Amino acid sequence: MTAISELVAALAPEKVLTDSDVTDSYARDRTFLEPGKPLAVVLAHTRDDVVAVMRWATRHRVPVVPRGAGTGLAGGATAVEGCVVLALHRMAVIRELSPDDEIAVVEPGVITADLDRAAREHGLMYAPDPSSYEISTIGGNLATNAGGLRCVKYGVTRDSALGLEVVLADGRVINTGRRTVKGVTGYDLTGLFVGSEGTLGVITAATVRLRRAPSVYPATIAAEFTSLREAAAAVSAIIAAGCQPSLLELLDRNTLKAIDDWRNIGLEESTRAMLIAQSDAVDGPAVSERMAELCTANGAAFVAVSSSAQEAAQLIEVRRMAYEAKERLGKCLVEDVCVPRSLLPDMIEKIEAIAVKHGVLITTVAHAGDGNLHPVFVFDRALSEPPPEVWAAADELFRETLKMGGTLTGEHGVGLLKQRWLAMETGPITEEIHRGIKQVFDPLGILNPGKAI
Amino acid sequence: MTAISELVAALAPEKVLTDSDVTDSYARDRTFLEPGKPLAVVLAHTRDDVVAVMRWATRHRVPVVPRGAGTGLAGGATAVEGCVVLALHRMAVIRELSPDDEIAVVEPGVITADLDRAAREHGLMYAPDPSSYEISTIGGNLATNAGGLRCVKYGVTRDSALGLEVVLADGRVINTGRRTVKGVTGYDLTGLFVGSEGTLGVITAATVRLRRAPSVYPATIAAEFTSLREAAAAVSAIIAAGCQPSLLELLDRNTLKAIDDWRNIGLEESTRAMLIAQSDAVDGPAVSERMAELCTANGAAFVAVSSSAQEAAQLIEVRRMAYEAKERLGKCLVEDVCVPRSLLPDMIEKIEAIAVKHGVLITTVAHAGDGNLHPVFVFDRALSEPPPEVWAAADELFRETLKMGGTLTGEHGVGLLKQRWLAMETGPITEEIHRGIKQVFDPLGILNPGKAI
Repeated sequence: MTAISELVAALAPEKVLTDSDVTDSYARDRTFLEPGKPLAVVLAHTRDDVVAVMRWATRHRVPVVPRGAGTGLAGGATAVEGCVVLALHRMAVIRELSPDDEIAVVEPGVITADLDRAAREHGLMYAPDPSSYEISTIGGNLATNAGGLRCVKYGVTRDSALGLEVVLADGRVINTGRRTVKGVTGYDLTGLFVGSEGTLGVITAATVRLRRAPSVYPATIAAEFTSLREAAAAVSAIIAAGCQPSLLELLDRNTLKAIDDWRNIGLEESTRAMLIAQSDAVDGPAVSERMAELCTANGAAFVAVSSSAQEAAQLIEVRRMAYEAKERLGKCLVEDVCVPRSLLPDMIEKIEAIAVKHGVLITTVAHAGDGNLHPVFVFDRALSEPPPEVWAAADELFRETLKMGGTLTGEHGVGLLKQRWLAMETGPITEEIHRGIKQVFDPLGILNPGKAI
Repeated sequence: MTAISELVAALAPEKVLTDSDVTDSYARDRTFLEPGKPLAVVLAHTRDDVVAVMRWATRHRVPVVPRGAGTGLAGGATAVEGCVVLALHRMAVIRELSPDDEIAVVEPGVITADLDRAAREHGLMYAPDPSSYEISTIGGNLATNAGGLRCVKYGVTRDSALGLEVVLADGRVINTGRRTVKGVTGYDLTGLFVGSEGTLGVITAATVRLRRAPSVYPATIAAEFTSLREAAAAVSAIIAAGCQPSLLELLDRNTLKAIDDWRNIGLEESTRAMLIAQSDAVDGPAVSERMAELCTANGAAFVAVSSSAQEAAQLIEVRRMAYEAKERLGKCLVEDVCVPRSLLPDMIEKIEAIAVKHGVLITTVAHAGDGNLHPVFVFDRALSEPPPEVWAAADELFRETLKMGGTLTGEHGVGLLKQRWLAMETGPITEEIHRGIKQVFDPLGILNPGKAI
């Protein structure tokens, strides 16, 4: 009996895909990275399916690459040669939604925005909203500790994760955390699994915190600037004034141009940056007026202020188009650096200088309120991976980020893409600790090998 | 050269205390637990002092018990026989406070309320506020992942910890996390150290998040109920109505009686419970009126609503007296269970039934908005530890808590006190993982042995 036929016997034939035309489509995420060839793809329907896969993988020493919707931007779900891709998108049941306790218990394949919508029927919301939230899964969000647009006010995925059900490398199952708001029994294993990119265990359920949904539509402004530095200064002013925006996004000219070329948003020749801000507070309209004033005081050429839910949605729509607009320009290396918020203007100037120096096209959007920037390096679609000048520019970007006290990745994760710079940020002692922790959970090294650490 | 003289030589004579009259005073926290005899107490002034202690301890295989202000309630800082108590309260410098980045970098001995006051000079606050915050240290708060009164709105200590400087068991130093708002490089070691009760490393500095301080005084209400269940129902109603209180505390009659006997607060004979609630939102006065209405609708006999900062302070003062008032009644076993918020009324009834069944005095305060209850078992001051009926009552409390999907400790930690119940919550697989993680950081088992896990 071959290993694969043993796997088929342990599950069911329709859950194990081996046709390489099919398995190839599960081998990549949204990076350009060339995957290895999977042995098989398992479509897990239940926790017991995951248990069966991990027991089998342990017995046969086969690497397992867990996968949500494949929307990752760091290569975390890229198949490795001879692995089983463990696809979790069929485990998509919201097992429980308790308005009284303001929690939900969900399977990993639930689409993030679907959970948010389910919560809103009870006046609640699921706060973390990565740009991909209409297509990405909770499991993938947990694996990468995804951020999003609202996290300037509500925090990242980790801040909404209370407890997890996890299948370990050898198929044993543990429950971490709790369904209470607080709890400090034992080490914080929930926090350890969140962001570990499938290298420590496979999350098969999560107890997540819901929050009270705002009772009003988010009052929204969009401000156009003729200078990036002025836009960044407006960000600092908005934070310093205590406006507590629920969204604060910056788009540079290259991004706006890509959107304008695609959808014609009437971009002015002189516009260098756009700032979009929202307040979902009860006094949101007053706060948004204040934010608009601060934009004007910092040099904004024009500020639009929403006066209805529909207008607010129109203003934010521009931001939601950013990623797709860029993908129309060419292949993209999407970066994700984060710097102390006060250094946002400096970082933006660095990025512009790096683009000029290396002769590469960089388009940048930023979760400005968090100091989290996504410089996107656009390159020729005919190339299989970024040309040397793009890597050189990225390398310089990372070095400048770390000099400023920043981090290589604010919300996308290390995956495969940032492996070569990881040690620069963590250092040898932390690397040793990472390896030690990995060894505790996965002594055979079969869980998503080569990722995250 | 003896081990101790080697330690004195590595530091400075005045930093190493060996007189047992003196060392005894560093051997306990605020539990009744009988400590072991320390070899010495080290008063660390700098990170290098901590490095020297850990190198020495590794060489000589001497256990080290890190200690903040000794205000812990679970025995986490209880000296073990033949240990060095590593006292960190002299490392009390706020190294940096950046209003632009809304962060501070602090040493572990900084008093929590002092950091909050320093932040308020810049319109910011340090949100976590354990009841002991005027005497407890940030280092101790981090070690236990302390909660507090405001965490119903602002989260626990972990939610404010961005990065740590940690001295490892062998004296090496690592920096975890970051000074940015977001960041997902590598495993979440910051979260792992927070709440690990000094068993994985010694925190010598922390980068913490500050938040915008409310611009108004917190609008405050105090409601008196003739039934505990009605008070608990009011809690649920306040949460369900989306009031988002910044504090929501429940005091039972036994607690109120202890306070009244001490300070005469004019307690009515019929009062069974008091609920104190605050809103620090911009529309706080309106929210507090709404909370008052919900109390009345749920049966409150009387509701006081603050109309000035002074009145608000008076109303909350009762809560701050609770712990001291109880200590006047006898020795206290302070418990810290947390249940899903919706089960608060059930838990409160269980506690009353347990008190009757075992014939023990239990006084309860609760961070009601979090479902976190502190049932305090009062026993005879002449006894060195709780009598059997108190342990039996506590045992039943824990079993009922776990049946409800709750946790043994919401914010105090496991320390020594909850060791014997720990496995009931975590189970054998998680225990094995805990031991594996401990082994990675502390292979010789010298860091606060016997605590936390």
